[in-house]
Amino acid sequence: MGSNAPKCNVCLIGSGGVGTIGSVVLENSGRAHVTAVLRSKYKIVSEKGWDIESVDHGTLKGWKPSRIVATVSEAALPPSGAEAQQYDYVFVSTKQLPDSYSVTELIRPVVTPGVTAIVLIQNGLDIELPIIEAFPKNTVISGVSVIGSRTVGENGIAHIGSERVIMGPHFHDGLDRETQIRQATEFVAMYDSGGPGIVSLDLDMPKARWYKLLWNGTFNTLCALMKMDVGEVQSSKGRESLLVPMMRELVAIAKEDGVELPEAAIQKLAYGLPDDCPYRPSMLVDVEQGRLMEIEVILGNALKKAEKYGVSAPKCSTVYELLKMEQWRIQQDLSGVVKAKPSKVDGTSLF
Amino acid sequence: MGSNAPKCNVCLIGSGGVGTIGSVVLENSGRAHVTAVLRSKYKIVSEKGWDIESVDHGTLKGWKPSRIVATVSEAALPPSGAEAQQYDYVFVSTKQLPDSYSVTELIRPVVTPGVTAIVLIQNGLDIELPIIEAFPKNTVISGVSVIGSRTVGENGIAHIGSERVIMGPHFHDGLDRETQIRQATEFVAMYDSGGPGIVSLDLDMPKARWYKLLWNGTFNTLCALMKMDVGEVQSSKGRESLLVPMMRELVAIAKEDGVELPEAAIQKLAYGLPDDCPYRPSMLVDVEQGRLMEIEVILGNALKKAEKYGVSAPKCSTVYELLKMEQWRIQQDLSGVVKAKPSKVDGTSLF
Repeated sequence: MGSNAPKCNVCLIGSGGVGTIGSVVLENSGRAHVTAVLRSKYKIVSEKGWDIESVDHGTLKGWKPSRIVATVSEAALPPSGAEAQQYDYVFVSTKQLPDSYSVTELIRPVVTPGVTAIVLIQNGLDIELPIIEAFPKNTVISGVSVIGSRTVGENGIAHIGSERVIMGPHFHDGLDRETQIRQATEFVAMYDSGGPGIVSLDLDMPKARWYKLLWNGTFNTLCALMKMDVGEVQSSKGRESLLVPMMRELVAIAKEDGVELPEAAIQKLAYGLPDDCPYRPSMLVDVEQGRLMEIEVILGNALKKAEKYGVSAPKCSTVYELLKMEQWRIQQDLSGVVKAKPSKVDGTSLF
Repeated sequence: MGSNAPKCNVCLIGSGGVGTIGSVVLENSGRAHVTAVLRSKYKIVSEKGWDIESVDHGTLKGWKPSRIVATVSEAALPPSGAEAQQYDYVFVSTKQLPDSYSVTELIRPVVTPGVTAIVLIQNGLDIELPIIEAFPKNTVISGVSVIGSRTVGENGIAHIGSERVIMGPHFHDGLDRETQIRQATEFVAMYDSGGPGIVSLDLDMPKARWYKLLWNGTFNTLCALMKMDVGEVQSSKGRESLLVPMMRELVAIAKEDGVELPEAAIQKLAYGLPDDCPYRPSMLVDVEQGRLMEIEVILGNALKKAEKYGVSAPKCSTVYELLKMEQWRIQQDLSGVVKAKPSKVDGTSLF
């Protein structure tokens, strides 16, 4: 795409730590016109923009993407005076909470069948499948991101870990392979030109997702369940007693799913961080802040595959069930349930 | 034993909620002379006695057993002017923390081989075995207690749930069966005469312990791990997803251990309490108060049997490993470990 070529239209849905830095990258590339959908923060960011402190992009005060809208429906309308809005890419970086809402329905207004490529920079396994089912003629670009970035205050972003993102088409039979590769390659090239982060094209995204899931399904889940950081899980011997055995269960499921993960992956992921590592993974941050955790896409979908293939995964499934108990408590708190006065109990009748 | 018969000498070790009420019961019977070993509370209780509010025994201000000593060694010495001290019974109601200290070594000074019957009113499975090994000619009376009693303040006891205790000999080959039954029967009769609690003699204590363990190995452990009361475990669906399956694992281990627990036991224990039951089991109270939990005797010993018999118990063993991580944290806090300044981490190198 030459410098005089028209810019790509990108709709950003999910403007948190990952998405907002993504919009900076895309605007920086000079090749994208980003429309960001901001729900809760629409008013403040429309007025003040984002105040960003970024390891990759420096200090940006009052930064705004090309267009800010309050709803996805509004993003689907043309900006005043322009022709009907059509997006080349929808960049989705919301939480994946299929038990709470459907990403498919969320993005439907801004997806043009046969045209828009849908980019999912989100956690989990099989998150592409409902999108492909709903939009069978669209390219779905899957992305695994590692980035230390989060929202702070009402309109701030603190970005302390340089971005590393692996993206590629999640191939399906709804359109030809060349088109899927071309759209993904163009998006990766555009994203790569927008910043110093490391951006890779990967044509085997199922494997990349399984690799990330080895970490997310173990450190992320155990840290959240035990309210421990990575170093505490390691020091408490949880790595040997549970984390590595859980990784082996996941490797066994992945194998039946057609993805071979080498023993070296377990060694690197389980033993790659120091024993005083203070990192607090996303699910731990979620539970600490009373937000729902991405349990279903991180462990739930892996365990559905385990059941389908008849692979035994008792440690992962026990941790999954315990996390669902924790999720129930978060839901109770979010819904403001007031505990009823408990009944009197005589437990001695049990014995 | 007639009213003019000499009183039994009983040494009480572990004067918390269970033990102190036990000493009240025994003194009330008129048949026992109780020497209580008070370690941390020796000074205050020697001076002021116990202030007890008891559903079974009413209000007792400044109550004291016959004799109070500060150490087990001191209990082994004769009171001034009397002949060498010998105990008919040692009543043990300490926590069972084999990873921290040995009950056997704790009680050794007050056990006369071939004479003293050792009464264990404690949680867990197989807690009798090290005692029998150390004192092969002594009767070991095993006891399972349900009592809502705890220490409050420096010298208070709040006893809100009437006592129900099942006791009986844990039979072994070191002395004849009749002696074991006689000593247990005498102790039960004495204990029964001291209060309104329900006291039963049971000649199949392994079964009674397994029955209690169905509850302790599931509600107690899940409540402690999730920081939930009984009602929350039930409302969060943890009962169906984990608690009942864990009970079935325990039933399978018990069966190989020679104890048949009927399906009705699971139904009664799992579904016997209302869904808003606010009861907080002992391990939950322990973790909330930063005290070590009785993990090894409650789940550890059951899982050792599972391994010995080749019974699969993946849910119980996962919960056990998670609780050991929690125990590690409690130990860190108890030992006053100050967290070292964490190293800087670049987690992106993992991906």
